[in-house]
Amino acid sequence: MNKIRLGILGGGGDSLIGILHRVASYMFDRYEIVGGVFNPDYEENTKFAKQIGINTDRVYNDFNQFIETEISKPLEERIEVVSVLTPNFLHFPMAKKLLENGFNVICEKPLTTSYEEAKELEALQRKHNAIFAVTYTYTGYPLVRHMKHMIAAGELGEIHKIDVQYYQGWINPVIHDPEIRKTVWRLDPKKAGISSCIGDIGTHAFQMAEYLTGMEIKSLLSDLNNLYEDNTLDIDGTVLIRFSDKFKGVLRASQIATGEENNIKVAIYGKKGAYRWEQENPNYLYHLKDDEPRRVIKPGNAYVSEIAADGTKLPGGHPEGIFDAMGNIYKGVAKAIRGEDFYDGEFPTMNDGVRGMLFIEKVVESNKNGNVWVSMENQ
Amino acid sequence: MNKIRLGILGGGGDSLIGILHRVASYMFDRYEIVGGVFNPDYEENTKFAKQIGINTDRVYNDFNQFIETEISKPLEERIEVVSVLTPNFLHFPMAKKLLENGFNVICEKPLTTSYEEAKELEALQRKHNAIFAVTYTYTGYPLVRHMKHMIAAGELGEIHKIDVQYYQGWINPVIHDPEIRKTVWRLDPKKAGISSCIGDIGTHAFQMAEYLTGMEIKSLLSDLNNLYEDNTLDIDGTVLIRFSDKFKGVLRASQIATGEENNIKVAIYGKKGAYRWEQENPNYLYHLKDDEPRRVIKPGNAYVSEIAADGTKLPGGHPEGIFDAMGNIYKGVAKAIRGEDFYDGEFPTMNDGVRGMLFIEKVVESNKNGNVWVSMENQ
Amino acid sequence: MNKIRLGILGGGGDSLIGILHRVASYMFDRYEIVGGVFNPDYEENTKFAKQIGINTDRVYNDFNQFIETEISKPLEERIEVVSVLTPNFLHFPMAKKLLENGFNVICEKPLTTSYEEAKELEALQRKHNAIFAVTYTYTGYPLVRHMKHMIAAGELGEIHKIDVQYYQGWINPVIHDPEIRKTVWRLDPKKAGISSCIGDIGTHAFQMAEYLTGMEIKSLLSDLNNLYEDNTLDIDGTVLIRFSDKFKGVLRASQIATGEENNIKVAIYGKKGAYRWEQENPNYLYHLKDDEPRRVIKPGNAYVSEIAADGTKLPGGHPEGIFDAMGNIYKGVAKAIRGEDFYDGEFPTMNDGVRGMLFIEKVVESNKNGNVWVSMENQ
Amino acid sequence: MNKIRLGILGGGGDSLIGILHRVASYMFDRYEIVGGVFNPDYEENTKFAKQIGINTDRVYNDFNQFIETEISKPLEERIEVVSVLTPNFLHFPMAKKLLENGFNVICEKPLTTSYEEAKELEALQRKHNAIFAVTYTYTGYPLVRHMKHMIAAGELGEIHKIDVQYYQGWINPVIHDPEIRKTVWRLDPKKAGISSCIGDIGTHAFQMAEYLTGMEIKSLLSDLNNLYEDNTLDIDGTVLIRFSDKFKGVLRASQIATGEENNIKVAIYGKKGAYRWEQENPNYLYHLKDDEPRRVIKPGNAYVSEIAADGTKLPGGHPEGIFDAMGNIYKGVAKAIRGEDFYDGEFPTMNDGVRGMLFIEKVVESNKNGNVWVSMENQ
Repeated sequence: MNKIRLGILGGGGDSLIGILHRVASYMFDRYEIVGGVFNPDYEENTKFAKQIGINTDRVYNDFNQFIETEISKPLEERIEVVSVLTPNFLHFPMAKKLLENGFNVICEKPLTTSYEEAKELEALQRKHNAIFAVTYTYTGYPLVRHMKHMIAAGELGEIHKIDVQYYQGWINPVIHDPEIRKTVWRLDPKKAGISSCIGDIGTHAFQMAEYLTGMEIKSLLSDLNNLYEDNTLDIDGTVLIRFSDKFKGVLRASQIATGEENNIKVAIYGKKGAYRWEQENPNYLYHLKDDEPRRVIKPGNAYVSEIAADGTKLPGGHPEGIFDAMGNIYKGVAKAIRGEDFYDGEFPTMNDGVRGMLFIEKVVESNKNGNVWVSMENQ
Repeated sequence: MNKIRLGILGGGGDSLIGILHRVASYMFDRYEIVGGVFNPDYEENTKFAKQIGINTDRVYNDFNQFIETEISKPLEERIEVVSVLTPNFLHFPMAKKLLENGFNVICEKPLTTSYEEAKELEALQRKHNAIFAVTYTYTGYPLVRHMKHMIAAGELGEIHKIDVQYYQGWINPVIHDPEIRKTVWRLDPKKAGISSCIGDIGTHAFQMAEYLTGMEIKSLLSDLNNLYEDNTLDIDGTVLIRFSDKFKGVLRASQIATGEENNIKVAIYGKKGAYRWEQENPNYLYHLKDDEPRRVIKPGNAYVSEIAADGTKLPGGHPEGIFDAMGNIYKGVAKAIRGEDFYDGEFPTMNDGVRGMLFIEKVVESNKNGNVWVSMENQ
Repeated sequence: MNKIRLGILGGGGDSLIGILHRVASYMFDRYEIVGGVFNPDYEENTKFAKQIGINTDRVYNDFNQFIETEISKPLEERIEVVSVLTPNFLHFPMAKKLLENGFNVICEKPLTTSYEEAKELEALQRKHNAIFAVTYTYTGYPLVRHMKHMIAAGELGEIHKIDVQYYQGWINPVIHDPEIRKTVWRLDPKKAGISSCIGDIGTHAFQMAEYLTGMEIKSLLSDLNNLYEDNTLDIDGTVLIRFSDKFKGVLRASQIATGEENNIKVAIYGKKGAYRWEQENPNYLYHLKDDEPRRVIKPGNAYVSEIAADGTKLPGGHPEGIFDAMGNIYKGVAKAIRGEDFYDGEFPTMNDGVRGMLFIEKVVESNKNGNVWVSMENQ
Repeated sequence: MNKIRLGILGGGGDSLIGILHRVASYMFDRYEIVGGVFNPDYEENTKFAKQIGINTDRVYNDFNQFIETEISKPLEERIEVVSVLTPNFLHFPMAKKLLENGFNVICEKPLTTSYEEAKELEALQRKHNAIFAVTYTYTGYPLVRHMKHMIAAGELGEIHKIDVQYYQGWINPVIHDPEIRKTVWRLDPKKAGISSCIGDIGTHAFQMAEYLTGMEIKSLLSDLNNLYEDNTLDIDGTVLIRFSDKFKGVLRASQIATGEENNIKVAIYGKKGAYRWEQENPNYLYHLKDDEPRRVIKPGNAYVSEIAADGTKLPGGHPEGIFDAMGNIYKGVAKAIRGEDFYDGEFPTMNDGVRGMLFIEKVVESNKNGNVWVSMENQ
């Protein structure tokens, strides 16, 4: 199976979103990053490409050159899908041109800066029959997928209530100073659009609600908080939502929930049962029913639905973060190989391996000899 | 910066350990897998190499050919480090030959099948001055590293007690049937060596204890349980450990802790404070002190130590598993691009993006108009 | 110190609220239940009084006799305070008459069936200068009191957001059947007043919000759900609340949150920090701050505020439920003394005591003899 | 039903164990405290009796007078059961004399200061056929009882492993100073007997293990830690335990587990399932099985066993601590009635009741009028 040829726009340097998309593309050995424009500055661009091990012959000066050169290549060589990781206002023009030129697209959220632009992209996508993903990342968690699947299968019965939250506190340390708050791009309508809190994180909560239920919200009523008069964008808000006259809910989002990190969570209640899940403990899904013990669904077990199993790479009890743990060990080894400074304990050494073997032998010896003390001195 | 040329022995097909090492090598863009022997069957081997996108010209028939061909290459092309993911009994001969031929090694645990072999490898490593890592994965967690660092810095004062556990239940469903238990390789001394439970998971707990304290255990006393007479290897055990006359502890390991998944955890107590951590919630480290509120240390925050920060790629509250969440979305997109079946909800689509933009606009509209109901019908 | 003479109206038989108030009155040895009207039926009334060990000479036929007889007694014998545990519609006439006749009152919530009645009671209380408590029980938790105290002392700085919830699921199993739902008194406007969910549990969340902040809500906007057209009372609702233009919040209440028990919880966010608390884990108060590890406040520790310490009877780590654990043991002993059937294990016996002494001696013996096995056979 | 006539020895003043036993005796309205010797000093004794509302005519000078006077009374007036809350060394002589004179006994643990004394008491109890309880309080928790019941009913199948822990940290702040540690009675062999940690809290863990399994431990091997040479008693220890050749376990106890409060917990593993429970969250019992979601058993639900239901006074989700919450409110009211100082917020007042009624009316009004803002100003 050939890997899919992936191009990337943006995400260079220390960009967090860049590393997130790259690692994601590596995870199942199905993509190869073959080129892109990581940085508006060409020198930085190629330097970064080398750093992440990309052949620089398809690292382009700019987006236009990217398009022109790629479409001149034969289909079997051409980049097949492009990840758009640029600032929000560039999503629309880039995605538009990519669609018009026959590319599939993976686009960061928010999709555009207005509903009108979004509708235009949608029409283009249909016309060109392209694959188009918007990376609402949280729907990638195995247990979120399990919820969606089980809800569709009727596990909760008819749903009558949803409560979804995304609370952060990061803006608290900056919002209260009149000078500092002027400098935050999230609070600048020119850069952030018409909303800060709802636009950035409220949308995640919203998408989670529609994703899990498989239904569309029919109407809403909101109450936002800007906190200061000279701050023109919302940094906190509550939204009453209705899927129907009988199925109501509430969506809560905040960037001034002091001390909260990325606390997105959801509770969804139906006639036959309920689910509760939160990102901060993503390997625990609570299934509640009338008059029955609560069940704790954990990924990697035989009982989870296919879509959840398909997205879990390891047995139960190993949190997905174990990939990162192993990644950290490889990073330490890389530093050592390259002669860079590394931290004491950055990777387990030969000595750990030797001590481990001594341990096994001594444990067996102590037990065999009637549970007596044995020395663990190296021999 | 050139990527490090990595070779892999073993880990082909659906091998869990294979995917764990590959993803780990990708994570920080510092390695390139350039070849190896993934599978003893050459056809399977090359098929797998293609599947994970490896150029097959350095996929070898067997380990001997691997060594011979690689050492014939100039140093600047030669594989620099080799991950040994083969069955345990092959670790020693492979690691030995790799060291003798000047390779750096990343070796799965247990290092060998005996302490004697381990000592021999250690001597070789010193002689050749090689980088050699044994992948005790759990020490890669940012908060485990934070503990080690802070303990070394004296945060807990003199330590007087450690309690470390690794409980699994996976052998419970098979151990009680005399026929089935004969078929498990973990219980076959020829394949598993002198120990099942202690050798496989007790060593992790042991290494954690020495890793965190930076000290060596001086003596131990063990009590193991084989449960059935015809079962010759331990599947459960408790080990009394002593770092010194004043610093004692206990290590508990089990494969018959029914319903437990991979429950490795540690509590370490000193004069000035204590730490508690468990893998099932790896983003929560509890710091206890006399007469003070407990502190919950979470990765990604400014207050964690350098080594922990260095191993964390995202802000606080995003569990490391978010990489996997994004990876699952990329996987769904890959299926769609390749025309494979995919699950409903496997990646967020254009429609999610469009609805998100409508949501933002309508929330702002409702708020601006005095908190009134607005429709969310697509327009 | 003489105990306070307490009278009780209602709460007879198996009434849960009855046992809750009685035990509460016993807890600090400060009240003596001297009489009352526990039941409208006089025979049941006296039977119950005997059962709970009350002298029957002040157990009255009805409320009027209660008032007349008590006020005829000299002040130093007269009942000093009366707990009103009768159905909601009786709170007002009883509390009114009690106040008019100079009694102090402890009244279950809701205080009355209308705001108008409540205002009338308030005027009477002022006129008679009576002590009057309304038992919003949740404000009695030590850590709720600690929050209030610390917020008043400025620990959180200026507060800008509150989120309070009371979710239950008990009505879910009955609401979906048209016949059954007609029979529930909580859904009958004649008995329950104008509201079910908000009146019964939303008020608790409301009182918690005003209690913790020490402030009054200025305005609100609500969205309620009756779920079925023939059901005239709300069983779910969300309320947007404003303490000021800058300090907004949301209150969520539900009786159809399937599988939830009595899940009242609160999160309160200020410039300098935040608190999170929930009744289901009432001994854990989370204190969040920007860029600092979260703190877990637990009762019974030297660091808690005076008001919290005053309401905690035991050292940290003993949940208050330990009183109930001991109560259950006393109950088992009572059954044995009275020759009633009791469960195996209902109280620890002489044998537990004997085995415990053997255990201590054998542990010391094993350790002294060099950590050897010793027998635990009774000798 | 007449209440049981209860006498108490010890537990006067601020004694924590005194308040625990008194409240426990009140809980189910089945005991009346009619007399005793609360304090060796007669004046203190009567003062205390008045304080807790006991008629002083059966408050005795000393234990001998207690026995003589009580046995001179007719059986139907005589104290039926006596709670022994005196220092440990007095348990034996008092319990002995009580048994010899026909009283039932509730005795604090440890039962005696030696196994020999304990055996003597046991013989006496049998001879006199008395009810005798030793207050291992933790077995009174509803979910501990549920475990015992379900294990006896075969829910876990044959058990093969138990792990029980009691960790405290209270001795840590005192043990490290040579002067201070000399002053602690727990470390004085004359007062505490042959053991500190095992005698005081290890016994609780031991009793829990035998209580839950309904089996006796056959043999044990211990390793204790005194930490300092001039400290003659253990303050930490691990005990290997065997119920049989196949059923092994480990018991861990510590008073130097820095920052731990009263962390008693247990995990018990059998062929068919496992239970995990800990006192710090006593309302959560985890039931683990191979390949099934974990179940969370909570008290107060219809699905719990009879013995657990019998010991639970309130519906699910109300932690037992709610009695204490209500008790705190009653305490505040008592202070107000007696004209003592009380804390702001010590009990909810008339104003809370009035505001609550306004809240209900305004919520309904806002909803009825189409979800509009309404004022919450008092009217």
